[in-house]
Parts: sequence; structure tokens; C-alpha cells
Amino acid sequence: MPGMSLELTTPTAPLAEAAARVARLLPARSLQPGMATVHLRGGAAGLALSATDGETSVRVLVPATVHVDGEAVVSRHGLADTLAGLDAPEARLAVEGSRLAVRTPGARFALPSLAAARPELPEPPPLAGAIPGAALAAAGAVCGAASRDGALPIFTGVRIVSRDGRLTLVATDRYRMAAAAVPWTPEPGGGDVAALVPAASLAEICRQAARAETLLVYAGGDRFGLSWAGCTVVTASLAGPFPDRQLDQLLAVDPQCTVEADADVLTAAVQRASPYAGPHGRVTVRPGDGALQVCGRDPLHGESEEAVKASVRGDHVTAHYQARYLVDALRPFAGETVRMRIQAGMRATAFSAAGGDLTYLVVPMRAEDA
Amino acid sequence: MPGMSLELTTPTAPLAEAAARVARLLPARSLQPGMATVHLRGGAAGLALSATDGETSVRVLVPATVHVDGEAVVSRHGLADTLAGLDAPEARLAVEGSRLAVRTPGARFALPSLAAARPELPEPPPLAGAIPGAALAAAGAVCGAASRDGALPIFTGVRIVSRDGRLTLVATDRYRMAAAAVPWTPEPGGGDVAALVPAASLAEICRQAARAETLLVYAGGDRFGLSWAGCTVVTASLAGPFPDRQLDQLLAVDPQCTVEADADVLTAAVQRASPYAGPHGRVTVRPGDGALQVCGRDPLHGESEEAVKASVRGDHVTAHYQARYLVDALRPFAGETVRMRIQAGMRATAFSAAGGDLTYLVVPMRAEDA
Repeated sequence: MPGMSLELTTPTAPLAEAAARVARLLPARSLQPGMATVHLRGGAAGLALSATDGETSVRVLVPATVHVDGEAVVSRHGLADTLAGLDAPEARLAVEGSRLAVRTPGARFALPSLAAARPELPEPPPLAGAIPGAALAAAGAVCGAASRDGALPIFTGVRIVSRDGRLTLVATDRYRMAAAAVPWTPEPGGGDVAALVPAASLAEICRQAARAETLLVYAGGDRFGLSWAGCTVVTASLAGPFPDRQLDQLLAVDPQCTVEADADVLTAAVQRASPYAGPHGRVTVRPGDGALQVCGRDPLHGESEEAVKASVRGDHVTAHYQARYLVDALRPFAGETVRMRIQAGMRATAFSAAGGDLTYLVVPMRAEDA
Repeated sequence: MPGMSLELTTPTAPLAEAAARVARLLPARSLQPGMATVHLRGGAAGLALSATDGETSVRVLVPATVHVDGEAVVSRHGLADTLAGLDAPEARLAVEGSRLAVRTPGARFALPSLAAARPELPEPPPLAGAIPGAALAAAGAVCGAASRDGALPIFTGVRIVSRDGRLTLVATDRYRMAAAAVPWTPEPGGGDVAALVPAASLAEICRQAARAETLLVYAGGDRFGLSWAGCTVVTASLAGPFPDRQLDQLLAVDPQCTVEADADVLTAAVQRASPYAGPHGRVTVRPGDGALQVCGRDPLHGESEEAVKASVRGDHVTAHYQARYLVDALRPFAGETVRMRIQAGMRATAFSAAGGDLTYLVVPMRAEDA
């Protein structure tokens, strides 16, 4: 393995966390040997871990005392699993022959070096602006509305667009849709953002970045990137035209009935109705005077009905929903008063909270399926 | 539904817990309609829930204010799921037409009455003696050594025998075996106990009874029962002769090497070696002077070796084990010093702790599988 060398000492916890972050951001254990690897490079700046699955690439910087500059490539799950189990406060990493050895007092773990498999990591696209971490974490609820079905790839993505001083995030699987906006500080001279980012990657980024004060946003060509706290993630934009205009129109809600209720109380009522939701998983919501009735009906399991205290304005229109979509739509509003705007006919119901930047739409079900 | 009536008020939490206990003790959602039911009977003594899956029967008493004596039969998972979600402190149960209604303020859940399916619950066999709950909970570790493979039914059971003032529990899947004993107070005039109890049922009983001071033991014919805290469980003994004598002989251990180590430290080392355990999941244990080397070797994932502080007596014999069997064998000794007695050749290694009543045997693996 010519040219491979590396020797460094590092606190175990941040290195284990960095390896776990890389593995979680690139979860698929790739079938292509050499793809599910992580590249380590040690130098004056510390240790950089980088990895890619071909679409998404990740780079994390870790503090380390590097004794011998150099690099190594190993299995990223092997490295993450090995480091996750260590309880020694410090670890020493060294290339030893065809192995990257991870040493703690009394223990040595030797990961095969995979020199041939060094991933090509692209540079991030140009810096476009900055967003606050807490706002992105809250907006991450959007990712849950994306499709998990790869047959329609554009619906597995979250559409991210900069406009009017905000960065908007939109996702839909065509039965429900979520839209959020976060404050956007454009980079002077930076370009606009218009990307379609894989929802699974973005969801993991939102989880990891929740405690970051600020994230830098990179965009250009067909790539989108975020960086925070020593970590940079760049993804290829999904191909295909996203129906921006049609989705914008869906957000222009014309409610026939507006209901406000405690989101937690309503969620609990929907969950209690779920065992009675029947073969189609349907619960019925019936606005009344000062209350919302939540009902289930199943030919085998019986019936449920429960009144949830609510403020109701407009017509008392009955609506039916997939119980789990209703629970998903209410979850982002936990601890808040949720506003349900029920539209006429089969038009979607919108869920939002006062002062919030998130709107969740759920398409109702018909009263009886054929 | 002639003859069905029942009306009562009860604190929600103990009723929900009782319904959950019944459902967990009889987990299979039976394919026979009418079997996965629970029978409720309310009277002066409160409310009794009873249920059976044909092999195991359960009866739990719950405090209740019964307004109308009577009974009802409903789906036991329907009842458990409905009660689990309630947050009202009290619930009112009433037979209403063809439904058992569960009412809390503002809510009504109506479970279909299944009158035709009332289970026949056998009376428990005669009282044989008593055992302490904490000791049974500790002995419950034995259940994990039973087979999950129904092809050899006797090895899916735990053998329970009274002798010499103790109740012994033994289980094996032929690759490992565990034996424990709990203090036994025989009932004057009561008979001996010799039963083979389904391990999955006993494991759940041990979990539920952990905080009971005393359990009563019933045995007779081909049935075995336990009762504690208002709950009685009776199981049919599994058929087939259990190899008591052969297993007794296995417990006569003749160690070639005796190792003592901190069980938690050793478990952590085995877990760290597990990613390196190779296609056969094998880790190697190598006693040395004052230490036990724990090693893994995998053609793809690399090698590991770790020294665990240990006191070692006898020959320094190397042994190989299925990593997950080793972790299972060490788990009951968490927080203690575990003693490993390694025998010659392919004879099992015994795990025990000073002053403990549990012995866990693991058959070693060969150095290299063909």
C-alpha cells in the first residue's frame, strides 16, 4: 500500500461521534465494494473524515494530535462500530502495514486499509448564504411529508428555494405536503438557491444540526451543500422539474371551517381512535360547538368517539383522514395550539400554528371507500 | 346476547395494567377467532380478567366498584390497546347491547361483545409451595438458554423441579444451558414439583413478578401454576421426557482453567470484538497471566485483540465461542465478578458468580470451521 501512512492521537468521543455522523449521513451499506468507505486525512489542521455514496458527500473535521501526516481508507461502518464501543478517553490511530490500527490501553482493533477505494470528494459549490440551526431543525418536519417510494424520485426530495429573505422547504408525496420557511441571510454576491435535496439526507442533517447556531448554505449547478460545526455535507440535486407553482397554489387555503385545538390533546385522541380506524386506517373528524369529535369505526374492532375541546369557526363539515397522516401532521405542533383549516370537498386540510412558519397539508379520504 | 350484563367503575391505571399483563402473557394473536379474547367478570370481589390461549391461562383481579354484576367477553388486544391510551384517571365499563363500552369523560370506546367465545378456564392444580419473587426474577435468566425452535418442543421449555429445599430451573438449546435454584418452601402435605414450562411464558412471568414478595406455586398432573399480586397463571406442562440426568452430569464441571473477571468489563470487550467475529460469529478467549485476551478475526473486517484484567488459575487453554452466546452467558452476572470454568476439549465452559445460584454453560466452538 504505497504512500499510506498516518499516526495520530485523539480524544475518543468526538472521533466516535464524527464516524457515527458520517455513517448515519450515508446509511446504505453500499453494494459496490469500496463505496462504503471513509477516508481519513491527518495534518496540521487535525483529522478530516470524508466519505461519499456517489450522491451525497460528507466531510467532518475532528481535533487530533497528528504525529505523522498521512491518510487511510477503511470501512466507514467498521470504523464507526469500532469507535462506538470504546470507553477509553483517548485513542491512537496508526497505519500499520495493510491495517489502520485503533489502539486504546490494552486493546488493538485493526481495520483493513482499502487504498484502492479512496473516494473522490467534490469541492462544495459556491457559498450562497446562512440560516439558523434551530429554525432548520424545526423546518425538518417537512422531510416527513416526502415520499419513500423511489418510483417517483422527485417526490423523495425536499425542494429548497431562496426568496423574499427566506429559504423555503417544500415536500409532498401527493397525499400530503409540508412547507416551511427559515430566515435567510444571502451571501453578498451569492446566487439564488433552487435545489431538490434527498429528504432522507436532509432529515438526518436537520437532526445533527439542531444545536448549531448557524449553517452555511452552498448552492450551484446541480449541487447543494450545508456546513456547520466542522461538518460539510454536499448532495447532488435530484433531477426532474418540481411542480413549484402547483404546490404554491395548494398553499392558498380557502377554509370552509377553521378549528383550533391543543395539538397534544388532539393527537392523543387520534391515537386512541386508531385501533378503531378500520381496514383503511380512517378516522373521522366532526367539528361541533366548542368541540371536535374524533371517531373511528371498524367492522370487527368496534367504534370510538371522543370530544376534544376546540374553537370552531365556519361550517361544521365532517372530514375523514388517514389516522397516521393526521398524527404526522400534528406532530410538528406538539405543545402548541394547532389550527386546522378544512376546505370544501376533497381539497386538503391545512395544519399550522400561530406565528409558525410551517404548514402541513393532508388530503382527506372519502367517507366510504368503494 | 342473552345473559350479558356488567357495569362498573374502576381506576384506569390498574385496569390498563391488568389488560396489558394478560395480553403480554398470551402474546400470539390467535388465528382461531374467539381465542384471543379476555373474559371480564364483575362481582362483589371486584373485576376478574381471565384469558387462555389453550396452553396457558391467566386470571387477574382488579379493584373495581361493580354497579351491575355480570360478565363480558371482548378482544384482549382490543381491550389492552384501548385502555393503554386512556389518560383519564377513572373509566366506566358497561355492557351496552352488543358492545362493551369503555367510557371516560368525553369519550366512548365500544368493543364488540364476543359471547360465543367465552374461554373455559381450568382451576389451578393443587398448591405445592412458595418461592420469593426477587429470586425467581433472577432465575429468569435461565429462560434465555431455551430453544426458540419449535421443532424440538422439549427444548423450548424450562424444567422446574423441587428438591432438597430448592426449586431448580434448567433450560438448554443444546449449545448452551442454564441452571438456577430458588429457595423453596413446600406446602405441608403438598406434592413435589416436576414440570416443563414454556420458556417464553415463564420469562414474561419472571418479568412481571419481579417485585412480588412471594409467589405461590401450584403443580399437579400435567399442569404448573404461579400466583402473585392478584394474578394467577397456569400452563400445561410440555410433553416429552426431559433429559434431567444428562443435564445434571453437565453441571459437574471439571475445569482445566478458572478465570475470574469483572463481568461488565468482559462483556464490553466481547461486544467490541463482535464486529470482528467473522462469518461464524466467533470470538477467541485466551487466558494469560493476570489477563484474558479477547480476540476477533475476520477476513474482511480485520482483527481485534483486547486484554481484560482477570485472575487466572490452571492451564492457559484457548477457547472459542459464539460471541452472542458469550454475551448472553455474561449478562446475568452484570455488576458482579464472573467465574469462567473452562473444561478440556469441546466440553462446555461454566459461568457463575460467588454466592449465586445460577450456572450458565456454553459449548465452545472449534478453532476453525471446515
